[in-house]
Amino acid sequence: MPPDLEGLEGFTCSKEWIAEEGHAALHLKHMGLQVLATPYMLLYGEVTARECLDQHLPAGMASVGVEALVRHLAPIPVGSRVMIEARIISVDGKGVSIVIRVKRHDGTLAGEIYHVRRIVRLEELKKRIKQPHS
Amino acid sequence: MPPDLEGLEGFTCSKEWIAEEGHAALHLKHMGLQVLATPYMLLYGEVTARECLDQHLPAGMASVGVEALVRHLAPIPVGSRVMIEARIISVDGKGVSIVIRVKRHDGTLAGEIYHVRRIVRLEELKKRIKQPHS
Repeated sequence: MPPDLEGLEGFTCSKEWIAEEGHAALHLKHMGLQVLATPYMLLYGEVTARECLDQHLPAGMASVGVEALVRHLAPIPVGSRVMIEARIISVDGKGVSIVIRVKRHDGTLAGEIYHVRRIVRLEELKKRIKQPHS
Repeated sequence: MPPDLEGLEGFTCSKEWIAEEGHAALHLKHMGLQVLATPYMLLYGEVTARECLDQHLPAGMASVGVEALVRHLAPIPVGSRVMIEARIISVDGKGVSIVIRVKRHDGTLAGEIYHVRRIVRLEELKKRIKQPHS
């Protein structure tokens, strides 16, 4: 584990997003209901958490998401602001656990995510990935 | 609960996807690693599960995702086939639990998702959604 990951527990990052129209739940769209689909709530949360970790990783290393538990608590209208707060709760070997809270423009808690990322060497990851037609 | 949801336990749907280039993990892309990001694995899984349920819902009703536990087990190269199998494991009131398995083009298990959807009346859902500037 890179030494600068030690002591990261409790480190918190926040990021503001705008719920994009292209990220609406398609099956509700035809009813005039333009709300963010759960996978995009996870996307906003993962990117916020990853960027929070990235600033502490040495060159040649990255983190990959291995697990996420997503609870979608309230609808987020498309076009509205979404506040994401990612808090590192533990660093254990190459695994980093992060809790992400998603708040709606009106302050309502719209989602909670428990997320685990693994620190990997990019060169090793490359070897693990076989191309589809190889 | 609509009467035709009774007896759905064990009902299974399968759907084949192609991992889209626009759904690659962006932080790995600049390294030449074109692999599907976890939120899009969830997107493919949720859409497969929702369409599986939709065919059993009467007009005016829909399902919304409320919870998902995603485990990402193996990388999925962009451009390759992804097989999704969604199996309804229980129906309890308005809640439907679904287990989703994600297989890679070479047969490797690439992901597992435990997913809960809630059956809602579209008219009631509409009332719950406040527009961002209202």
